Amino acid sequence: MRGVVMYAPGDVRVEERGEPRIVEPSDAVIRVAATCVCGSDLWPYRGVEELRRPTPMGHEYVGVVEEVGAAVERVRVGDFVVGSFFASDNTCDICRAGFQSRCVHAVPMGGIGTQAERARVPLADGTLVRVPGEPTPEQIRHLLAASDVLGTGWFAADAAEVGPGKSVAVVGDGAVGLLGVLAARELGAERIIAMSRHPERQALARKFGATDLVTERGDEGVARIKELTGGLGAHSVIEAVGTQQSMEQAIRSTRPGGHLGYVGVAHDVKLDGMELFFAEIHLLGGPAPVRRFLPDLIDRIMRDEITPGDVFDLTLPLAEAAEGYRAMDERRATKVLLTL
Amino acid sequence: MRGVVMYAPGDVRVEERGEPRIVEPSDAVIRVAATCVCGSDLWPYRGVEELRRPTPMGHEYVGVVEEVGAAVERVRVGDFVVGSFFASDNTCDICRAGFQSRCVHAVPMGGIGTQAERARVPLADGTLVRVPGEPTPEQIRHLLAASDVLGTGWFAADAAEVGPGKSVAVVGDGAVGLLGVLAARELGAERIIAMSRHPERQALARKFGATDLVTERGDEGVARIKELTGGLGAHSVIEAVGTQQSMEQAIRSTRPGGHLGYVGVAHDVKLDGMELFFAEIHLLGGPAPVRRFLPDLIDRIMRDEITPGDVFDLTLPLAEAAEGYRAMDERRATKVLLTL
Repeated sequence: MRGVVMYAPGDVRVEERGEPRIVEPSDAVIRVAATCVCGSDLWPYRGVEELRRPTPMGHEYVGVVEEVGAAVERVRVGDFVVGSFFASDNTCDICRAGFQSRCVHAVPMGGIGTQAERARVPLADGTLVRVPGEPTPEQIRHLLAASDVLGTGWFAADAAEVGPGKSVAVVGDGAVGLLGVLAARELGAERIIAMSRHPERQALARKFGATDLVTERGDEGVARIKELTGGLGAHSVIEAVGTQQSMEQAIRSTRPGGHLGYVGVAHDVKLDGMELFFAEIHLLGGPAPVRRFLPDLIDRIMRDEITPGDVFDLTLPLAEAAEGYRAMDERRATKVLLTL
Repeated sequence: MRGVVMYAPGDVRVEERGEPRIVEPSDAVIRVAATCVCGSDLWPYRGVEELRRPTPMGHEYVGVVEEVGAAVERVRVGDFVVGSFFASDNTCDICRAGFQSRCVHAVPMGGIGTQAERARVPLADGTLVRVPGEPTPEQIRHLLAASDVLGTGWFAADAAEVGPGKSVAVVGDGAVGLLGVLAARELGAERIIAMSRHPERQALARKFGATDLVTERGDEGVARIKELTGGLGAHSVIEAVGTQQSMEQAIRSTRPGGHLGYVGVAHDVKLDGMELFFAEIHLLGGPAPVRRFLPDLIDRIMRDEITPGDVFDLTLPLAEAAEGYRAMDERRATKVLLTL
């Protein structure tokens, strides 16, 4: 089968890879219906994360089950399924507490590479969630978003304890930040402040439910958030970038006693203990346990209540994955969907 | 009146200070019944925090109201009251959310200095909580502990979401850590692991409810906590030291999805963003909003259910405050009570 392999920063190729097969009895093999390029795929693409060898890419996927191992009970051949970027047993203490991305048996799907025609999915019973009915092509786009960026934005909003009557500030206007806005709307936030200076992303933020836009960054951005929240800062802040500046901006935008959900992978970030201490805010972040939210997200999508796939602003066949990476790297695209 | 003044690191004197008086109509003046020396008083005593001028000391206090301003309505002359280290209005949005230490009108009592015969208490209606009935001398010791160290340990346990069926690890065997153990027991924790290598503090931890003691520190301490918690780490961790090592030990002792409450004032601490991201734990810390817990703590003390004053292992008259500071600095005493 064909799949995406990154050879070096800037060097992405689509080439023949071995056919995936059942390795463990708890595995499934799926035929990928759609996959996409993640903001985090840009870290090695830009040389920020080291690449030691040619590496299969991709960890977002929806598709149809083609084969299951002997121990698989809940997933059947022919099921249309959604999984996320960590395979998880969904039965250990950590999974049952809702943190499947830290499952004691977690397997990173990025190590398998789902930008491909087929993929092996470990712990299939725990990892894969069946979609009821036959998704339309549009619904497939939305379900693919649920696989990572929607699930991650939703987790950030949940971690930030977004809810009715609350103000929410969203730092980051990438796909995750934008879907954090959508999650905040769905969770009933009263005021949703998106921080963006990019006209097209601002428009999508508005569509997803942003009530206010802030174009300032750093201290000025924080000052604007405070102006909009009675001088106190937002009840809930979503951080979806992962830099020193974005984390500081997010911490300082949260009111004392408020909640910050951070999902940007924190590269070269050092948090000052004294600042954090006196900020006196709740923090929760990390790789999103998307699995926790998938059943609910799939239901909302199949009822046509949410359209998270709107973040895909460029669609290319898998064979043109290299152009997809380039477009995201150059910020010509927010999020690239790869068709199969 | 007489009060404690710090002149320089290691130089603490008891000397004549001006009589406190009502400045704002919301003030009260109390006659201090008992006060004490805080672990945080040792930071300037040891030269870790800079002292710019001779500084009145103390922020823990219980006492009797002697005078109230014209706007004070809930507190009356003659009331026996407990306050904490931040005066707060207890009516602003931040206070109503339970974060009175970050009240929009907060006044640090440390700037007033309660190691003295009398003290002005700003925002008396919001700050002071009346004790029902006449406390015994023993109860006065316990109420004084509620003013800071018990309230702080309790906040840490609350922030760590301690509760029935949960495992709790406590990093730090000072007064706050020990009272974090007591709080964990009162909040119904199933297993309470105190980290201490000091025999007397271990004994007090046992008395307060510790089920296990861990003497190892750093990576070995973390490994022991994991051994005791099925390899996962504790559900809830209380950090009550405030150093790089103690914070890292606390973060690494918390299971994914678990809760860390940190109340050690974080000096020279830098948290690594990537470690925090992949730890995937809830964090909440800062100056404890003791006011939130005072009514409940006072009730428990006046019903003789808890004996937090057991942390005071040295009692001296105010005149001998300098010896009290020395004893705590040299770790001859955990917590020094000053009588008046």
